[in-house]
Amino acid sequence: VRVAPPARARERELAERVVASFAGAPDDRLRHLLQALSRHLHAFLTEVRLTEAEWRAAIDFLTDVGHITDDRRQEFILLSDVLGASMQVITINDEAGDGATDSTVLGPFFLGDAPVIERGGDIAAGAPGEPCWYSGQVTDTRGTPVAGAEIEVWMADETGRYDVQYGDGRRAGRGRLFADEAGRYAFWALTPTPYPIPHDGPVGALLAASGRSPMRAAHLHFTVTAARHLPLTTHLFRRGDEFLASDSVFGVKDSLVTDIRHPPAGTPAPDGRDLAGATWSSARFDIVLAPG
Amino acid sequence: VRVAPPARARERELAERVVASFAGAPDDRLRHLLQALSRHLHAFLTEVRLTEAEWRAAIDFLTDVGHITDDRRQEFILLSDVLGASMQVITINDEAGDGATDSTVLGPFFLGDAPVIERGGDIAAGAPGEPCWYSGQVTDTRGTPVAGAEIEVWMADETGRYDVQYGDGRRAGRGRLFADEAGRYAFWALTPTPYPIPHDGPVGALLAASGRSPMRAAHLHFTVTAARHLPLTTHLFRRGDEFLASDSVFGVKDSLVTDIRHPPAGTPAPDGRDLAGATWSSARFDIVLAPG
Repeated sequence: VRVAPPARARERELAERVVASFAGAPDDRLRHLLQALSRHLHAFLTEVRLTEAEWRAAIDFLTDVGHITDDRRQEFILLSDVLGASMQVITINDEAGDGATDSTVLGPFFLGDAPVIERGGDIAAGAPGEPCWYSGQVTDTRGTPVAGAEIEVWMADETGRYDVQYGDGRRAGRGRLFADEAGRYAFWALTPTPYPIPHDGPVGALLAASGRSPMRAAHLHFTVTAARHLPLTTHLFRRGDEFLASDSVFGVKDSLVTDIRHPPAGTPAPDGRDLAGATWSSARFDIVLAPG
Repeated sequence: VRVAPPARARERELAERVVASFAGAPDDRLRHLLQALSRHLHAFLTEVRLTEAEWRAAIDFLTDVGHITDDRRQEFILLSDVLGASMQVITINDEAGDGATDSTVLGPFFLGDAPVIERGGDIAAGAPGEPCWYSGQVTDTRGTPVAGAEIEVWMADETGRYDVQYGDGRRAGRGRLFADEAGRYAFWALTPTPYPIPHDGPVGALLAASGRSPMRAAHLHFTVTAARHLPLTTHLFRRGDEFLASDSVFGVKDSLVTDIRHPPAGTPAPDGRDLAGATWSSARFDIVLAPG
């Protein structure tokens, strides 16, 4: 867009006044954030030549996002997610560096009160889906096992729902366990399946209007913590999943994409469990923690 | 901030994926807006190295803005105002060009149903404050009078309140009149006084934390419309007002700053009105409309 120099000068002068208005903020970091926000906001507005009708539509959109948000639904986080902002903040603050397992978004369904299970136990607790045997080893970046690392996992069932969405207070598809003295862990859960983020609100409307899918690539959530190591928040993604390249919250990292193997029919389960003829799968996911 | 090249590359790659995710938006303008928004948002996040705690504070702030917003209070517009975004949108879309009266923000107190008064009438209608006689001429950019131009004016009283804030449904400090065949108008209203924008919510807290005043420079609102001319939305500001340089919504333009004159005691009012010895003031404000 061509803008006449006098108009451009007026716009620049206004942006500079806004930046200057924050010069007296007593907190250095707050001043830096608000001045940078002002610069980028005005750069956006003047670059796209935002119209008054578009400004009004943006105000109405944010108002709708605010009004659907309550103690149980956080549409602003969802907005941050679909704009990649949540994942960018994770990426910026990832101190683990090369060699450690990559991190990704925590998501809205972490509770921190998952029931503790034995190694080899089943976190599904009745959540419907195909059983999947997960196993692996927790080590540090030099390959030394991290004995006793605490692992919390949670996931959606095959209908795309987490336990908190059942609405009956049940805990299912969620568990906590500890690695053994060699850092090894194993548990039963479900084969992960893709599901949509909540898309019946303004963020869903935004995705629909822009031709984007609300689907998340199939995944299992992990947090892993151990003394003297950086905590890790990540996902295991399923290799071959159709939504890996279009994950609606940009959470996929290639290093986290894992084979989910289906053994030939009749293969006994790794722990001898009787699955009554049902199909099952297995995945190996080794975890590397950075020094803390 | 120094960021290692591999980390910088990961951040850039993520931002590019977000931009690309909107490539399929069927509406050209929406695609352009969302791609530009994504670029500027990620440029901001990576430049300031936003922490997870700051991200969370931003989510909480927007949530509070959303929850205080209702049919009577629009905190998102207030936020747009104090970031200069509202004024920038006005500036970008001001088509009037040089020679016409500058425009400024409409503000939240325009109603569109102001009572019609005769030329020379009083719009105060009981709103407390010092009487001020406003007069001027409406012309086009070639100096030709605009006969019959419709002028709507509204203002806060000397306590800083607009009529809608009285809470009793009264209309006061608000009126509509028509210029005569020579484009001339005159009316009584009040000498404008500074007042704060609503600052008991999250936007007020933001201003306080950043050392900014919520005060608006004293002003009188005008909208002026006439056939075959661009509509004008503007303010008359008071020369010498202490908040001209720190107007909380960045609405001041030098060209709109006007002398409010106080005549010597005992000077008769311009229209012979009996002011019972009260002080009064006067201002001349000529208006130039651009061709429509």
